[in-house]
Amino acid sequence: MARESDKDFVKDITRMEDDFAQWYTDVIKKTDLVDYSPVKGFMVIKPYGYALWENIQAFLDRRFKETGHQNCYFPLLIPESLLNKEKEHVEGFAPEVAWVTHGGSEELAERLCVRPTSETIICSMYAKWLNSYRDLPYLYNQWCSVVRWEKATRPFLRTSEFLWQEGHTLHETMEQAQEETLQMLGIYQEMAEDLLAIPMVAGRKSDREKFAGAEATYTIEALMHDGKALQSGTSHNLAQHFTKAFDITYQGRNNVLEYPYHTSWGASTRLIGGVIMVHGDNRGLVLPPRLAPIQVVIVPIAQKKAGVLEHARGIEAELKALGLRVKLDDDDSNSPGWKFNEYEMKGVPIRIEVGPRDIENGVVIAVRRDTHEKASLEREGLGSVIAALLDTIHGDMLERARKNRDEKTYTIDNYETFKTVMAETPGFVKTMWCGDMACEEKVKAETGVTIRCIPFEQEQLGDTCPFCGKPAKHMVYMAKAY
Amino acid sequence: MARESDKDFVKDITRMEDDFAQWYTDVIKKTDLVDYSPVKGFMVIKPYGYALWENIQAFLDRRFKETGHQNCYFPLLIPESLLNKEKEHVEGFAPEVAWVTHGGSEELAERLCVRPTSETIICSMYAKWLNSYRDLPYLYNQWCSVVRWEKATRPFLRTSEFLWQEGHTLHETMEQAQEETLQMLGIYQEMAEDLLAIPMVAGRKSDREKFAGAEATYTIEALMHDGKALQSGTSHNLAQHFTKAFDITYQGRNNVLEYPYHTSWGASTRLIGGVIMVHGDNRGLVLPPRLAPIQVVIVPIAQKKAGVLEHARGIEAELKALGLRVKLDDDDSNSPGWKFNEYEMKGVPIRIEVGPRDIENGVVIAVRRDTHEKASLEREGLGSVIAALLDTIHGDMLERARKNRDEKTYTIDNYETFKTVMAETPGFVKTMWCGDMACEEKVKAETGVTIRCIPFEQEQLGDTCPFCGKPAKHMVYMAKAY
Repeated sequence: MARESDKDFVKDITRMEDDFAQWYTDVIKKTDLVDYSPVKGFMVIKPYGYALWENIQAFLDRRFKETGHQNCYFPLLIPESLLNKEKEHVEGFAPEVAWVTHGGSEELAERLCVRPTSETIICSMYAKWLNSYRDLPYLYNQWCSVVRWEKATRPFLRTSEFLWQEGHTLHETMEQAQEETLQMLGIYQEMAEDLLAIPMVAGRKSDREKFAGAEATYTIEALMHDGKALQSGTSHNLAQHFTKAFDITYQGRNNVLEYPYHTSWGASTRLIGGVIMVHGDNRGLVLPPRLAPIQVVIVPIAQKKAGVLEHARGIEAELKALGLRVKLDDDDSNSPGWKFNEYEMKGVPIRIEVGPRDIENGVVIAVRRDTHEKASLEREGLGSVIAALLDTIHGDMLERARKNRDEKTYTIDNYETFKTVMAETPGFVKTMWCGDMACEEKVKAETGVTIRCIPFEQEQLGDTCPFCGKPAKHMVYMAKAY
Repeated sequence: MARESDKDFVKDITRMEDDFAQWYTDVIKKTDLVDYSPVKGFMVIKPYGYALWENIQAFLDRRFKETGHQNCYFPLLIPESLLNKEKEHVEGFAPEVAWVTHGGSEELAERLCVRPTSETIICSMYAKWLNSYRDLPYLYNQWCSVVRWEKATRPFLRTSEFLWQEGHTLHETMEQAQEETLQMLGIYQEMAEDLLAIPMVAGRKSDREKFAGAEATYTIEALMHDGKALQSGTSHNLAQHFTKAFDITYQGRNNVLEYPYHTSWGASTRLIGGVIMVHGDNRGLVLPPRLAPIQVVIVPIAQKKAGVLEHARGIEAELKALGLRVKLDDDDSNSPGWKFNEYEMKGVPIRIEVGPRDIENGVVIAVRRDTHEKASLEREGLGSVIAALLDTIHGDMLERARKNRDEKTYTIDNYETFKTVMAETPGFVKTMWCGDMACEEKVKAETGVTIRCIPFEQEQLGDTCPFCGKPAKHMVYMAKAY
């Protein structure tokens, strides 16, 4: 197999080894995923980027419904007095909300914030609705956009507005709330692995890193190509923090008024940033097959020769009939070589080339985006071979991402090595930790590294905290993070 | 067939003959479609209401994609300077927008409005993106919420925030823009008839009623039970009004810089209000089968008797396997009679009752929500009979709505009769009109009646305008409207 070197592609996309941030920016712009808008920190999600979000939505929405959740919609604007009801919550969010002060030409009596998240407005409604234990559980979700006024923004990863879903549930017992919290984290992890081909570390956030107002926050964390972590989905057990603040009560089984237990959980367009930074390469995007808006692109060779386009259309029809997302690019104003580059950059998992000689030989050429492997495939029975190849690519991408992550995951038991590794070959660090917030904050201040999670899969790596020498309490994953 | 009279239901729902507005409010509250939120004029869409919107979305989204459109997402907030660029547009919308003035603790240098519609922000991006005639057409749509500060609001019909989709397209020629405008209106009409079972009058808005900034607005209009019209979807040919204001140009086929032609079109949660007011009755909702979140409810009779629940579950499984949306209500804390009332109120198209005697006889009892007709159906082959019955109900509901509308549609050729009809038996009035805005405004001021549209299907009803006596130019549909 003879292929051009990566060098030929570098004219458009900065090499990630040279400048990872610029590589990221080049990729998202060149592949038409997003654009910057006239409002600082707000992005436009273009059709190719939005199609990724639609596929994530479809997966999650199906799983939410299979687990008994229903969608609904709560107002975009939240009165300031509601936001103020839960103390930790308002402290966490007030500094980053956008305030509406005027409706039409009139000044409002009370300021309204554009929702940064909807616990408060939703709790105000739950307080009104809930009567009896028979009404529980409440299993509701909404798809919407939220606004958080950010100073430094990067498309998908941190923007002043982003699209997400937020689930908000109520339960009779703490155990049920905990079960829900972990179930939804599990669905995020399943989506990340089965759809995005991204392996995740799952665990609990430290108290410093948890959601403002939560009893406990659980997270899935992925490792990017540059060794930084991306928090990719969070699920919060809010216990009775909000239900007491909002006076949500119900008649319990013993005829006593009770406060329900409460969860919330969210995943956002940020996941798309993760897909780019886990799978992408110096030629551009590499999309996992189940997420890709175009799974197979067919490029006819010498398409003006008799029979070529008809043959290509036959392949297109066969693949479409199998439910695959296929594009036949028959635009004759671009050369096949231009198309090869274009769809490689756009991360289309499989390219099929077919020309007069291939037709004669009863074959097509199939090229994998992830490995650049080229194979000659029999035209007869092509559909099922391509469908199977897409699954193979998914599995290989997940394994490759896992291997990359594991190679950048270090077990460390002293602070000096920790600093050296983080400065020179950043990645996940597995280490013991004393459990003190002061220790955690000192490490962050000195190195910029945070505890990503206390993983569910604990390992006994030692007895002392390498940062302060006190007895160790947990094994943690640490990293610099987006 | 012996059934309770409507009277038995009136304890919860005001009779529409007594107070139509109160009937509407009772229905939407009692059936858990929506609730009022703590923010004046903003509604919460509850799961049963949101499921209606999801079905509308699914229908439209499929048709948009089949006609070559792609989804994308543009920012929620629009800088004031952008809103001001198109003169008629800002005059139309500025009085009803919400203004964001602060981000976090800082006052913004420029106010941002929460989008009331997105022509301006989208045009600012199109100006940046469009280069050549080869890029055209642009066929984009977004699903989002918009905010319009309203003084008097009613759930679904007029709220300060609502959910909708807005399509925004660019074309090389005025003819193509016109074709797109009418194609999308046609898709709205198709959705209204095929999904909502609501017949529509389609036509062009008068200049007074058109969208702020449009060359021409096209609309579909439905007639409600109370004789008032509901504008149910609009499609605008914006010609070059915005593309010139935003300096959107491209290299044309003759190498000359050209301004493209532009359309936009939208449909919203308001449609749900139309479904309620066209099909509902004094027992509550009557949902058209293809829209209904639950198409068939199965109510077991004497469900504690051996075999009843198993039998009911067998029916549930058979109907679900056909792709029908089925609910088996086996909650034994409610009586069958309570359930009959509940699902009638909620508008479920078919109720199946099955008890020990029915099982013995190899039958089930099926009751239609729309006609209250009760039939004994063979258990054997039930699935296909129920599927066919749902289609029959759809057709019957559409025809009944058409008959209701036609009975309330009056052909009128003098102003006195017009006033009498509108005061006593309101509905659609078909009449001739001179085409002058002054005449139209005088009628509105004197009677509250507006021109709903100049229908595509013109009839020659006379030679003079009944309002001013001048020569008639068009046949129009007029009505009081929501």
